[in-house]
Amino acid sequence: MIEVYGHGGDVETAAVKYGRLPADFLDYSANINPLGPPPAVTRALTEGMHHILRYPDPGHRSLKHKLAAKLKLSEDQLLIGNGAAECMALIIQAFTPAAVGTIEPGFSEYRQLAEQYGSRIEYIYGHKELNYRAELSAILELLDRVELLFIGQPNNPNGVQYARSELEAIAVYARDRDVKVVIDEAFIDFIPEHERETLTDSLEPYPNVIVIHSMTKFYAIPGLRLGYAIGHPDIISAMSRKQVTWSVNGLALLAGEACLMENSAYEEQTQACIKEERNRLMSELPALGFQVYPGVANYLLLETPDGWNAESLQEAMGKQGILIRNCAMYTGLGDKSVRIAVKGRQDNSRFLEVLRLLLGEQ
Amino acid sequence: MIEVYGHGGDVETAAVKYGRLPADFLDYSANINPLGPPPAVTRALTEGMHHILRYPDPGHRSLKHKLAAKLKLSEDQLLIGNGAAECMALIIQAFTPAAVGTIEPGFSEYRQLAEQYGSRIEYIYGHKELNYRAELSAILELLDRVELLFIGQPNNPNGVQYARSELEAIAVYARDRDVKVVIDEAFIDFIPEHERETLTDSLEPYPNVIVIHSMTKFYAIPGLRLGYAIGHPDIISAMSRKQVTWSVNGLALLAGEACLMENSAYEEQTQACIKEERNRLMSELPALGFQVYPGVANYLLLETPDGWNAESLQEAMGKQGILIRNCAMYTGLGDKSVRIAVKGRQDNSRFLEVLRLLLGEQ
Repeated sequence: MIEVYGHGGDVETAAVKYGRLPADFLDYSANINPLGPPPAVTRALTEGMHHILRYPDPGHRSLKHKLAAKLKLSEDQLLIGNGAAECMALIIQAFTPAAVGTIEPGFSEYRQLAEQYGSRIEYIYGHKELNYRAELSAILELLDRVELLFIGQPNNPNGVQYARSELEAIAVYARDRDVKVVIDEAFIDFIPEHERETLTDSLEPYPNVIVIHSMTKFYAIPGLRLGYAIGHPDIISAMSRKQVTWSVNGLALLAGEACLMENSAYEEQTQACIKEERNRLMSELPALGFQVYPGVANYLLLETPDGWNAESLQEAMGKQGILIRNCAMYTGLGDKSVRIAVKGRQDNSRFLEVLRLLLGEQ
Repeated sequence: MIEVYGHGGDVETAAVKYGRLPADFLDYSANINPLGPPPAVTRALTEGMHHILRYPDPGHRSLKHKLAAKLKLSEDQLLIGNGAAECMALIIQAFTPAAVGTIEPGFSEYRQLAEQYGSRIEYIYGHKELNYRAELSAILELLDRVELLFIGQPNNPNGVQYARSELEAIAVYARDRDVKVVIDEAFIDFIPEHERETLTDSLEPYPNVIVIHSMTKFYAIPGLRLGYAIGHPDIISAMSRKQVTWSVNGLALLAGEACLMENSAYEEQTQACIKEERNRLMSELPALGFQVYPGVANYLLLETPDGWNAESLQEAMGKQGILIRNCAMYTGLGDKSVRIAVKGRQDNSRFLEVLRLLLGEQ
């Protein structure tokens, strides 16, 4: 297993294990935009390298101003963070919930951060036959036992969305019980806007809901770290009081502003590419013996064909220079679960070719 | 006052206040190496920009390995942080001291972080006639009232060092009372090695001492955020458990490795430049009516000439495009205290010229 730190994208570990250079892998274990950063971001970083020479703005004023305009929110509803992970950490630090709720399988950072800051974890399982979605009634019951709930939207690793009506029911039920709901939209930008199930445009009735975004997955700059949180000004202010000065670096702030420039062609192209290639993978993989869980994100949860498990497939693919995510460590998944990124046409052809080779060989 | 976030280096605020572009200021309010980054760092960043495309190594393995070799320490004695500020935050998060001790005036983050994570602050004052150093006996008494003590070495804003024998006495006294001592060496690299007062090379008897370094001031990359902590493996491991995954970005890791390459010419040149220019400023400023507190760092604490205070001088200099640090907000300093960076020959000539102009005009 190459997930020694509990996550995909660890090309350093893979490099040692499979005897290649980190840059030589085709990385299907991390879910980054296959188009790479938009030209505006690359240009901003190339031209703005001198920003490393001075301290980042501790108030993130310029980026926050532009983000507020784009999202049609006020600046005091926004917190800029050192990645989505820092945003989540600040929520737990600000509210120190005795119990944190998760729906499994889900992003492991929800549990890890809860443990890190001393919260108890209460969780429920999604149903395999519902593509690992949990039933609304079970989520509401979970809300009775926690002070804060994490929901991935779309969820990782299965890529499903809860319906907006479900999110509303959760938000209302939680609000009446003074429970905070953290909706993690780290991957939602990969979904075309009209297909997204989100409360972001109507958060006012829900001062207990915090929405978290990542800017580094969709804009393909995970090395820079940038995310943001949307919520009631009181929540944002409480989170902000826990943030370490200058935690967001200057190049991330600069790149963030470039991400907010007119990038709609890039955004549409990304969403179209992901949809087309996801459909292609979903139609080709079953013929190779995979069980595919239909999702709407830029990754897919699979079960390995007969005779293979996550470990053996990861190992065989790794030796071929392709990394996949072994999901055996996800609470609620077994040793046959893997997650793969949806990448561009050419990479996916190579990916399928290698799979055919390996699975044919058996 | 331009320190709206409590720190120097805020060119964004200055830009609005004085009607110039952020990049147009000569910034004497932040203490960054006037030589700029070493060529190896600039090269590494230019050639390694593609590192933004993948997640940073959450284990910081390559940088930690090289840093351990350079410092002749084992890797489990090192924690790589998102700036020195994150290292300090992790110490308080890991040990949640009921009371944190500071010696004033000192770096305001010590107090801010203590407050941020709910610690009480106990403090003593340095003596003006000792260039704001505190007496050893007073520091030891302070240790009786706290669970953790911060010491700046050299201290900010006055630039003085405590003697190694004093640090040893503090470390021993604290160890016997189970008190942690955090020695903040953020600026020590600006002091020639044989003039540094440090315990870094002999930490073994003091499992209660944590030394913190910044890599962004000396190597002139404050926009990237990079620092590290040295301490007993148990302390490092406790801090590490509080660190958010990927908190150190990929370009900072890359630049950090380049900082550890053979840069001794750059290091010596920096130290020589700082010493020469500091001596020059120390000899010229009294003639302009300043009281200069002799320090050994790359900054100087001053009191403004008669008829001026920190506010009026900052304002007048700001309008001329030069930023200085108003130190009125430092606990224990008054409204005549300012701090200036020691920069290169040409900048300092301009700085002195503008001062002569302003002070002559009065």
